[in-house]
Amino acid sequence: MSPYEIISRKRDGKTLSEADIHSFIKGFMKDEITDYQITALLMAIYLRGMTPEETIYLTRAYIESGIHINLDHLPGIKVDKHSTGGVGDKVSIILAPLVACLDIYVPMMSGRGLGHSGGTLDKLESIPGFRTNLSLDEFHKVLEEHHLALIGQTAELVPADKRIYALRDVTATVDCIPLICASIMSKKIAEGANGLVLDVKYGSGAFMKSVEDAEKLARGLIEIGSAFGQKVVASITSMEQPLGNKIGNWLEIEESIDCLHGKGPKDLRDVTLNLAMHMLLIARPELKRSEAESICIDALDSGKAYQKLLEITQAQDGDISYLQNPESYGKAAHILPLNAEQDGFIISMNTYDIGMASVGVGAGRLVASDVIDPKAGIILHKKIGDVVKKGDLILEIHSEREDTLAKALERLQQAISISNEMPEIPPLLLKEIL
Amino acid sequence: MSPYEIISRKRDGKTLSEADIHSFIKGFMKDEITDYQITALLMAIYLRGMTPEETIYLTRAYIESGIHINLDHLPGIKVDKHSTGGVGDKVSIILAPLVACLDIYVPMMSGRGLGHSGGTLDKLESIPGFRTNLSLDEFHKVLEEHHLALIGQTAELVPADKRIYALRDVTATVDCIPLICASIMSKKIAEGANGLVLDVKYGSGAFMKSVEDAEKLARGLIEIGSAFGQKVVASITSMEQPLGNKIGNWLEIEESIDCLHGKGPKDLRDVTLNLAMHMLLIARPELKRSEAESICIDALDSGKAYQKLLEITQAQDGDISYLQNPESYGKAAHILPLNAEQDGFIISMNTYDIGMASVGVGAGRLVASDVIDPKAGIILHKKIGDVVKKGDLILEIHSEREDTLAKALERLQQAISISNEMPEIPPLLLKEIL
Repeated sequence: MSPYEIISRKRDGKTLSEADIHSFIKGFMKDEITDYQITALLMAIYLRGMTPEETIYLTRAYIESGIHINLDHLPGIKVDKHSTGGVGDKVSIILAPLVACLDIYVPMMSGRGLGHSGGTLDKLESIPGFRTNLSLDEFHKVLEEHHLALIGQTAELVPADKRIYALRDVTATVDCIPLICASIMSKKIAEGANGLVLDVKYGSGAFMKSVEDAEKLARGLIEIGSAFGQKVVASITSMEQPLGNKIGNWLEIEESIDCLHGKGPKDLRDVTLNLAMHMLLIARPELKRSEAESICIDALDSGKAYQKLLEITQAQDGDISYLQNPESYGKAAHILPLNAEQDGFIISMNTYDIGMASVGVGAGRLVASDVIDPKAGIILHKKIGDVVKKGDLILEIHSEREDTLAKALERLQQAISISNEMPEIPPLLLKEIL
Repeated sequence: MSPYEIISRKRDGKTLSEADIHSFIKGFMKDEITDYQITALLMAIYLRGMTPEETIYLTRAYIESGIHINLDHLPGIKVDKHSTGGVGDKVSIILAPLVACLDIYVPMMSGRGLGHSGGTLDKLESIPGFRTNLSLDEFHKVLEEHHLALIGQTAELVPADKRIYALRDVTATVDCIPLICASIMSKKIAEGANGLVLDVKYGSGAFMKSVEDAEKLARGLIEIGSAFGQKVVASITSMEQPLGNKIGNWLEIEESIDCLHGKGPKDLRDVTLNLAMHMLLIARPELKRSEAESICIDALDSGKAYQKLLEITQAQDGDISYLQNPESYGKAAHILPLNAEQDGFIISMNTYDIGMASVGVGAGRLVASDVIDPKAGIILHKKIGDVVKKGDLILEIHSEREDTLAKALERLQQAISISNEMPEIPPLLLKEIL
């Protein structure tokens, strides 16, 4: 079928065949099909949807646009984790060394900050020297030696997704479940993992605002994984408020180190341990849930996971002295407090706005060419359900640029609501889909 | 609103404001908005539709992308005609001189063949020397002197439509009523006409297959014309079979000359006279319908309209000797008959296939770079309702290239159905919308 006919079939709500989808993606990658043809198709997909089969075909076409890493020579199930993104979500930085220190191979391919949400790569790169742009050879070598490699998407893997994502980003076709599913799963399959734990976020700081949509996405992702023989489980977790208390690249490394020392905020620890347990259960299905939980808690509290973070940081050229002595990193030049204007309870936090405020002070990028200030961000001193008295410190804004503070303060003031009525605290771990 | 927000509003089925539509089209023409963004918007418009108001805003944005010709210095109402296109539709070649010889200004801007349907410009250019690419100065001069100018869309007029049409053509967003309406009406308004008669075709050889869709399109076009102070009327006419008996560029000029001599096929004469009467009634609303009819019949049968065709041909550098002596033009090198394979009635003609067969033998273009053979085409000897005996001549295929004949013959054989039951003959003039 010609590109024109493929576009018109989807436009008319018909189902595309595997051959249609493959020839379209192949033609696009060979520049025989133009950007303006694929964006018309993407909009038609957005509005007409895709069947589970079509989504699997699209995922396969994405994978086949690049190389498919083979990790079969490594023993056991190779397990990765993917989060749909949020604010203060530094789980990977704790989770990856935690699982790797249990002698499970964790080939972890992460992303950069996008919109209001931070990215693991940006956080890792706030550690001086840390290289996430390993070559494929280095990736194999580091993974084999340390059971772990922390890298970004390489040009060789799923190049179709990279090009199509850039077009979706400017044509309002990002938040479309089949397109999201193909984009996420193609990378997770091509990188060679045969086990995957998903942290699908819902709430004001998540891509999916409702639990229902989050669950729909989770089921879509699991369905694709199964079609490719991958074992996938998902936890639906809250992004109705930031995860943990620190937002911003180095600030989140600091909080991760706390957590790796058995301290740090409870919500962050709980989500991390839940996901770690699922990764362990995928790799060692003979374990009982309670056994897996104990193993993970021990790995965290014994310092073994912390040692693994030092090890992998060194292996990827990072300077571990800052991890060992975080105060030596220093603080941002300007710190501005936000104090409560009334007595009451913190009843809600617009987490999208909190994320955008942190981007505004330098913790993320508004345009791709922006440079991140690693020390910039927000430290929360109160969260939903906490009692405040007028004048109490709610949060601190950290920025290298004084001129960014006022706007961020205003946005944060509006993002955080205080009321006399005690709020319901949104549940953190809402559901597991096994 | 940003381009992204405009695309997402339409994607979500919301209504765009005049400012949104103008800024999008303006941004596109300034290359600040890309091809791949506008095709995403076009697909969203295709699937979500546009309100009449949005369609008017789009039409205005199209017009404002170029110059707007002012013909106010010419007395009376300037009337053009537009046909939605079909097979054998040579009406403009007869109609334009007919109305112009009644001292009504006819600024006629026509198109080229598109898909299966022919184009007035291609037909006129089969007259040796005839120039349709007049400059705007020439257009004004010829129109003022002769009450008529026959030209193509110039680069100065509605450039946005030209660019957007090319993108619609390859992204399956052509047959969308609001987009069609804006495309047609922007040109008809920008060219300076303040009266317009529409020939909206329905049937197997038309863009709109059903009468209902044709009527919907007609009403959409009329609504836009009214918004711009233009007087518009529409006739819905049949394209269930070709109009007249000849298809192909010079062949249609020949048949037009017959008609201008008061002869030629009745269906062609009837449609032409109906549209001429409407144009005359727009320019001279004081006339009764019967009076207008008589005036048009007289203009045709007296030879005045024919004289006007000679006059305008000469004014646009065409060689009138071929009009005066059509046999001197010669015939195509190869002529192949299609004979009836059984006795019976001609019960249907797939007019799209007949049009495509004529394109295939050289009367049109499959790709934009194809060169047209002016003598190529089809002459019909039978039409729907005619009785045939086995072996009777149904039609002749004319081609310069022998290798094209077999395929055309096969397609035509399948396009024409013969049966023993007398068919209903599709009505020619179905409806007038005043």
